[in-house]
Amino acid sequence: MSFSAPHHALKTEVAHWFTRLRDRICAEFEAIEDLAGPNPGRFERTSWDRPGGGGGTRAVIHGQVFEKAGVNISVVEGQFSPDFAARMPGTAAGAEFWAAGISLVAHPRSPKLPAVHMNTRMLVTAKGWFGGGGDLTPLQPGTAEAAEDAAHFHAAYKAACDRHDPAYYEKFKQWCDEYFYLPHRNEPRGAGGIFYDYLDTGNAAADFAFTRDVGEAFCAAYLPIARRRFAEPYMAEEREAQLVRRGRYVEFNLLYDRGTMFGLKTGGNIEAILMSMPPAVKWP
Amino acid sequence: MSFSAPHHALKTEVAHWFTRLRDRICAEFEAIEDLAGPNPGRFERTSWDRPGGGGGTRAVIHGQVFEKAGVNISVVEGQFSPDFAARMPGTAAGAEFWAAGISLVAHPRSPKLPAVHMNTRMLVTAKGWFGGGGDLTPLQPGTAEAAEDAAHFHAAYKAACDRHDPAYYEKFKQWCDEYFYLPHRNEPRGAGGIFYDYLDTGNAAADFAFTRDVGEAFCAAYLPIARRRFAEPYMAEEREAQLVRRGRYVEFNLLYDRGTMFGLKTGGNIEAILMSMPPAVKWP
Repeated sequence: MSFSAPHHALKTEVAHWFTRLRDRICAEFEAIEDLAGPNPGRFERTSWDRPGGGGGTRAVIHGQVFEKAGVNISVVEGQFSPDFAARMPGTAAGAEFWAAGISLVAHPRSPKLPAVHMNTRMLVTAKGWFGGGGDLTPLQPGTAEAAEDAAHFHAAYKAACDRHDPAYYEKFKQWCDEYFYLPHRNEPRGAGGIFYDYLDTGNAAADFAFTRDVGEAFCAAYLPIARRRFAEPYMAEEREAQLVRRGRYVEFNLLYDRGTMFGLKTGGNIEAILMSMPPAVKWP
Repeated sequence: MSFSAPHHALKTEVAHWFTRLRDRICAEFEAIEDLAGPNPGRFERTSWDRPGGGGGTRAVIHGQVFEKAGVNISVVEGQFSPDFAARMPGTAAGAEFWAAGISLVAHPRSPKLPAVHMNTRMLVTAKGWFGGGGDLTPLQPGTAEAAEDAAHFHAAYKAACDRHDPAYYEKFKQWCDEYFYLPHRNEPRGAGGIFYDYLDTGNAAADFAFTRDVGEAFCAAYLPIARRRFAEPYMAEEREAQLVRRGRYVEFNLLYDRGTMFGLKTGGNIEAILMSMPPAVKWP
């Protein structure tokens, strides 16, 4: 088999862009830490190799605002296992793949500040496609503040979508709602956002441009919420409720999340894959 | 289709026996709570109905020794979903099933006291079989105390096995080691114990007698460890390490555990299924 030519040609540029986005986000998070008083958190980076090809770098912060946040970059290549290849496009003539992505999960200390997740990625087999998105998880769902934050978050992603295709936002918002859903509890994971996968319009450069906009929209979507909320006072009971709600996050990621499964099935770095786990959780 | 006749005939007796075992174990746990000073924990029972047929009762304690422990009894019946039926014996002529079981998970407060899990069950389709076992999860693996506890725990199950078949213990110990394993970490979940499934020797009464012995062996296996260890002093760092190790328990139950999957796939009670989650966990 041979790799999809237009996506193959973008590999270097795509991988480099993920790194630049990571650097920008880490700097923005650290700037918020600096606002929060003494002992601001700083990201620590650890590189890892993937047996079979490629590797990545995880950056983790344990800070004042961000109790735990992680940004992982990975650029991996190799062979899908046969059962996994059967579920991936473009593998009829061979199970070789190349994949690069950035993935972020932030678990703030304050229950007033929503948790957030973002990811963008490019996969290349005989086909090639982009995927990604961002979604917000208020820890005090049902409040006016949660609704306000969700509206701001969605507006930022809608603006990014609308610059590329007027149909994208509605479609990718719905995909997000369907994806981040816990059937065993009949509950959405959070307030949604956008989610897309298998994006291949036939114009790889345009799909990459959209994916860059989605990645950058994360900053517009989340950073103002973080700056507005991090210092709001809260009570011990609200912290307890936050720790319990975080359990839903764990349940989703281990029971349903395809990113977690992709990592586990393709021999990814276990610390990087499970970086998404909240720092402290309760199931009372 | 019709149910396996010898197993069908045992339904009432089997379901009743699970209830008696539950009562005994709850009483034993509460007796240990009474040793631990003021405000001993007591089990609270909640019954639940299963849409589609049957139901159960979960009993949960939040105590001094047992930070959280739950014992669930379920007696359920109905139709397996098509994809689930395909993986279950005796469903070629129909997807009806009957299942009853007892399942226990205890998460002690002290890191000196291992967590423990036990389960026994009978499944009936056109075939019928028993399954069950018990396994120990030391929270301070690698210590002399963990080795001592594991030796005691295994000896109790070996004695129960040896009364029925000299081959059972080795076989079921190995099955347990294979089952309670976290491939993504290349780690066993704990110190093992025994695990068996699809047990149908052709003598349902004998298989039930073995299963009763396995259920009762739990008391001999675990209660002496609990009584010996609960009051041992420990340091704050040991508590922190316990909370982190509990993360492995969550990962196993949500990523791999067939009992969790069985419950989620057959519309079981979500609070009963996830009763196994530790009360507090950290992923630092």
